Amino acid sequence: MAPILIALMLIGLSAAVGGWLMQKVGQPAVLGELLVGIAIGNVAYWLREPIITVVREGDLARQIADYALRHAVSLVGAAQKLSPPGPGTARLVAALAGAAGPRAISVDLFVDQLSRLAVIFLLFLVGLETSVTEMRKVGQRSFLVALVGVVCPMALGLGAMALLMPGSTPAHDLFIGGILTATSVGITARVFHDLGVTRTTEARIVLGAAVVDDVLGLLVLAVVTALVVDGTVSFWGVLGITLKAVIFLFGSIAAGLWLTPRLVPRIRRMGFRNVRLLFGLGLAFVLSWLATRIGLATIVGAFAAGLILERFFTQELEDEHSLREVLSPLESLVVPVFFVLMGLQVKLETFLDWRTVELAAVLTAVAVAGKLVAGPAAGRGVSWLSIGVGMLPRGEVGLIFASIGRALGVVSDKLFSAVVLMVVVTTLVTPPLLRLLMKREEQHAEGAGAAVSG
Amino acid sequence: MAPILIALMLIGLSAAVGGWLMQKVGQPAVLGELLVGIAIGNVAYWLREPIITVVREGDLARQIADYALRHAVSLVGAAQKLSPPGPGTARLVAALAGAAGPRAISVDLFVDQLSRLAVIFLLFLVGLETSVTEMRKVGQRSFLVALVGVVCPMALGLGAMALLMPGSTPAHDLFIGGILTATSVGITARVFHDLGVTRTTEARIVLGAAVVDDVLGLLVLAVVTALVVDGTVSFWGVLGITLKAVIFLFGSIAAGLWLTPRLVPRIRRMGFRNVRLLFGLGLAFVLSWLATRIGLATIVGAFAAGLILERFFTQELEDEHSLREVLSPLESLVVPVFFVLMGLQVKLETFLDWRTVELAAVLTAVAVAGKLVAGPAAGRGVSWLSIGVGMLPRGEVGLIFASIGRALGVVSDKLFSAVVLMVVVTTLVTPPLLRLLMKREEQHAEGAGAAVSG
Repeated sequence: MAPILIALMLIGLSAAVGGWLMQKVGQPAVLGELLVGIAIGNVAYWLREPIITVVREGDLARQIADYALRHAVSLVGAAQKLSPPGPGTARLVAALAGAAGPRAISVDLFVDQLSRLAVIFLLFLVGLETSVTEMRKVGQRSFLVALVGVVCPMALGLGAMALLMPGSTPAHDLFIGGILTATSVGITARVFHDLGVTRTTEARIVLGAAVVDDVLGLLVLAVVTALVVDGTVSFWGVLGITLKAVIFLFGSIAAGLWLTPRLVPRIRRMGFRNVRLLFGLGLAFVLSWLATRIGLATIVGAFAAGLILERFFTQELEDEHSLREVLSPLESLVVPVFFVLMGLQVKLETFLDWRTVELAAVLTAVAVAGKLVAGPAAGRGVSWLSIGVGMLPRGEVGLIFASIGRALGVVSDKLFSAVVLMVVVTTLVTPPLLRLLMKREEQHAEGAGAAVSG
Repeated sequence: MAPILIALMLIGLSAAVGGWLMQKVGQPAVLGELLVGIAIGNVAYWLREPIITVVREGDLARQIADYALRHAVSLVGAAQKLSPPGPGTARLVAALAGAAGPRAISVDLFVDQLSRLAVIFLLFLVGLETSVTEMRKVGQRSFLVALVGVVCPMALGLGAMALLMPGSTPAHDLFIGGILTATSVGITARVFHDLGVTRTTEARIVLGAAVVDDVLGLLVLAVVTALVVDGTVSFWGVLGITLKAVIFLFGSIAAGLWLTPRLVPRIRRMGFRNVRLLFGLGLAFVLSWLATRIGLATIVGAFAAGLILERFFTQELEDEHSLREVLSPLESLVVPVFFVLMGLQVKLETFLDWRTVELAAVLTAVAVAGKLVAGPAAGRGVSWLSIGVGMLPRGEVGLIFASIGRALGVVSDKLFSAVVLMVVVTTLVTPPLLRLLMKREEQHAEGAGAAVSG
């Protein structure tokens, strides 16, 4: 029991401290959780702390445990067989030896499962904050910005992969392209809110586009995940999976919107306690599980559940304590597990290899360029640059993409480090840049106003 | 990921349905969670469902996994080596074979860790509902009832063990005696509340005694756990551990009460978010971890943390959203995991052995008799029977005792089944009996009143 308690305390503390530090410098808390995770993971590895050394390996550690459980070898034997040659293997073998090995594995399994639940929970919350009704209203400009902001990074990503990793498979390249497409609406919304400019045309276009981008990004994820699992890419394959994902997303939302108002009041009348909470998370779990069953990512289901309940709860039960509010304590406990764990798994030593630095630089450049060119899609009369910058942060969605890719085996340690760096940079630059741009806009508008009145 | 989602959905659903059924018949929800767990566990075992077959084995499954990870054998080999001979072993081996084995083990590890966290959380909540100030005021009568209600079941339990299991060690017998001492204040409080008699002398004596019993029970648990780990029982050993437990409990409470009002406002001023929640659970985790470090049960620390914060938050921050309220959604999600899991691990086939039935009957009789004789300790002028019956339910504390005993290896499958049956029976009979007694008291009082006024 003790190692799990320490692990959870460590995660909670690092999330709190990281979030607090970032808040002080006007950055999103997510970034702090990620950076503290990176710091702890690498320092602990350097100090040869066994449990974090194992957790840091992520999926490899779980493959080793699986192998040791299924074959007549110990953890150490499995590690020697499955780890790639390198100085890391000796440390991993040392960490897995003796009584500490199973303990480290059990912490790793627990934290990994918890972080997967955290991701389901996070996308459920994103869904809960996304309004289907408003999404219908965002209009052509937001939709165009979102579409260009998904197509361009994907195309640029494919090009970059063809140049940097000429030997990789099309499915692999499409997956990396997919990582580059996601926009994190939360970070941009926060900056707009902090600046008090949520009602400007630019902000509304960006927020609308980010929401559409969430849905498009999930569709892209669904498709590239299935392609990686299949191993081949064909036109009909892509079309089939896209159709399946679209049908699942819209079908489950339609079914959910029809069922929920019929089920919830009935369950409530029967006298069940905590209906809102249990039904909400239950729906998120059921749809996540269904999504996995038909070969899509769990988070597609979680997001759909959030969308369904946003509509149901805001429209039908306005008088109640909001579900969002009830979930808030759970959010602050569970969600940081994912971000700290992602940080822990960034191996700084991979940057000693020049290729990783190159990869990170190219990915970041492509990620920035791909979204900046989405600005002009907003049309005339608005600041293209503000819109492009507003679409920059990859935040949680990019990380979830990368973690799924790691579990599927398409994202190597080097690529993972490069992706996290890309996420950190795009997230880091957005708040100050956006503040600068929006303030200049304002002064510009004031200047124009003064000229008119003068 | 999918099996964990199904497991959590199953636990959530069974807890909701079980709790709802019990509420309908005027019984505590805990009982429903336990009974639904028993039903699912045994039906799934009968249907040879692999994951529940593994989870049902509890600690044995984890020992098998640990062995397979540390030695050059597979899960199947380890199961054949470690399982006791019997028809259960063949099923367990079948459940652990192939790719399903590691999956079942990972579900078992996750659910087990989650249930341990649930217990920490539960005792933290019990602590949060226990007022140190009120405990000081409960007076001599409550204290005497609690003391007799701890000493008598322990003494009777030791006697019963000497008769039924003459070969067992003193540490083992003391542990079983310890299981019999716990009173669950929650269930009794609920019944009194439902009847609207919380302000009668009987109710106040019982509630006071149940709170004192919580503390005494934890001290007993601390001592017997340490004795089992040591393996020997000596007068000085018992005295030493008792002192250590008392010093830990009172020392940590004193330190906590001194530190908390100095730390929390400072942390809050620094601008951390969710201070109450993170500090609360953080303190519970730190004290639980400290308790394990010095050889006590984790829950002693969790309870101490609850006591500290009850005092701090109710006295110093009355204006705020209560911590109890913030934790309520988390409680309804996490705590049932423990009760459903306890139910899952009750093997009904153990009752095919006459010795288990005998054991369950004797334990239940001793548990009832030991608390009923505590009634007269309340002195004159009150209904001794109502007080004795009010002290009957073992509820969560007895189960936690039993689960710790299982992990320590002093509580066998048969004994565990017998203990759970004892907990179910003592919890089941309390609400109807207490209702009957309190109503008779009332009629009696009314009759006397009518006689006086007439």
